[in-house]
Amino acid sequence: MFYLVGLGLGDAKDITMKGLEIVRKSHTVYLEAYTSVLSVGKDVLEKFYGREVVLADREAVEHGAEEMLREAVDRDVVLLVVGDPFGATTHSDLILRARALGISCQVVHNASILTAVGCCGLQLYSFGETVSIVFWTETWNPESFYDKITRNRSMGLHTLCLLDIKMKEQTVENMMRGRRIFEPPRFMSVRRAAEQLLDIVQRRREQGDGNLGKHDLTENTICVGLARVGATDQQLAAGPLAAFIQADLGPPLHSLIVTGHLHPLEWDMLSQHALPGCNRPEPCEDHKKRSSMTNTEA
Amino acid sequence: MFYLVGLGLGDAKDITMKGLEIVRKSHTVYLEAYTSVLSVGKDVLEKFYGREVVLADREAVEHGAEEMLREAVDRDVVLLVVGDPFGATTHSDLILRARALGISCQVVHNASILTAVGCCGLQLYSFGETVSIVFWTETWNPESFYDKITRNRSMGLHTLCLLDIKMKEQTVENMMRGRRIFEPPRFMSVRRAAEQLLDIVQRRREQGDGNLGKHDLTENTICVGLARVGATDQQLAAGPLAAFIQADLGPPLHSLIVTGHLHPLEWDMLSQHALPGCNRPEPCEDHKKRSSMTNTEA
Repeated sequence: MFYLVGLGLGDAKDITMKGLEIVRKSHTVYLEAYTSVLSVGKDVLEKFYGREVVLADREAVEHGAEEMLREAVDRDVVLLVVGDPFGATTHSDLILRARALGISCQVVHNASILTAVGCCGLQLYSFGETVSIVFWTETWNPESFYDKITRNRSMGLHTLCLLDIKMKEQTVENMMRGRRIFEPPRFMSVRRAAEQLLDIVQRRREQGDGNLGKHDLTENTICVGLARVGATDQQLAAGPLAAFIQADLGPPLHSLIVTGHLHPLEWDMLSQHALPGCNRPEPCEDHKKRSSMTNTEA
Repeated sequence: MFYLVGLGLGDAKDITMKGLEIVRKSHTVYLEAYTSVLSVGKDVLEKFYGREVVLADREAVEHGAEEMLREAVDRDVVLLVVGDPFGATTHSDLILRARALGISCQVVHNASILTAVGCCGLQLYSFGETVSIVFWTETWNPESFYDKITRNRSMGLHTLCLLDIKMKEQTVENMMRGRRIFEPPRFMSVRRAAEQLLDIVQRRREQGDGNLGKHDLTENTICVGLARVGATDQQLAAGPLAAFIQADLGPPLHSLIVTGHLHPLEWDMLSQHALPGCNRPEPCEDHKKRSSMTNTEA
């Protein structure tokens, strides 16, 4: 049997009872080695589970996981993954491979950042498509997330922006010399995401001869920064995009939400975490009916 | 302290270790009396927790929860809710009330149907706005969810349809006589949702002189039915909308997904659960670039 068990938001005790029972009875326990997104280390998990935990390289998981699956043919094998097994990243491929080998699979779900962001008070059924904001490089400055955010806003919808994580980066020199030496992992902060978004706002304004579309994200759009969601030192901050240039939400992981139309109750929740300059926006005429529609349908 | 603890997908063992510790140390344990959406009864939870569990009427929770909060001023009180505390329904109001009374709050997240539906293999970042499909009555046949589905499809996005749950319904006679006698709860099945959607398809076709828009949902649109997600008897089925008229996915809870543009890996996963007539749709020219964009950004 092959088990895919979600670890939730990153603390050892975020595992479910069902997940823990599987971990304790399985022959081998693998942990997807994306461990720096856990708030605790492998050793803490091992102590808590009372089991040895084997780090499974993420590349290995994505490109085969052959050893793991071979073992699962006649033994119980579990792969632990942060969040929900089908959350921000997909493990479909692994399931398909296992089934092709005739191996039964069981999934144990858990909390994912995709829904846990609801803790800021924005209603999850008022979110549009999720976007990812990637680290810009000297030569690669993609802007497609900006257009998706604007499209969501034109429908009155909020946008969850997942912020880039860079693991196993190599310097050009180390890569050229074939040295498997990796740089420390980098996590995009809300501040960095805000800087990139403000750069795009400026570019778009220049392209539009000083004008932006009615629903375009601007310096004044209310955004929500979230850090270490679910942990005891979780931090939330709400304010205009420009205010996040000054905001330090501390260690990773960070996420950013760009709001669309705000329901009064949503505003009440956000104002509990208001940064300077966080003033209630004028509701857009186009979306006034969202507040009532949402209530009828929910 | 006031704790809001998510129970996840409905089995007693879906609670997290963190949640269970809170339940065991708290003075009073309330359960939002939406219990028929749990796959187990209150007694099973009580036995598993080794604690008495007090049913909290949902109306009471939504309109005050005064007793509960008064108690939380100087004691540890926990409210258990199915799914994630901020999942399909919002508990923001309760948090605001508690804070207004100077009560500290802690939230323990858990799996929600909003992300657990990823188990069917559709990528969660390819979903647009979530919709709710309500039971039609003789006099009330809303169609707004159809337009939202079409709008999501026009962007190549999938739509999660949350299906209606009717609790505490009264017959007209009982209501008139002021008798607090309630009908058994009703849960919308995938079949019923498909019937309503097909009715709308027919109406819209009549309104359009036999034609529908390019991205409109039709009888042939590939949909996914999900039942009892996360439970051992979970059931998934993929096929054209019309095929769900014949499909019986068993006891509640059910959810329905209307697909947008399908990535090849998504199709591979869906075809594991194919109903008759589940043929791979021609990819729409408008969204061909989604497959590559998604991979770059994720």
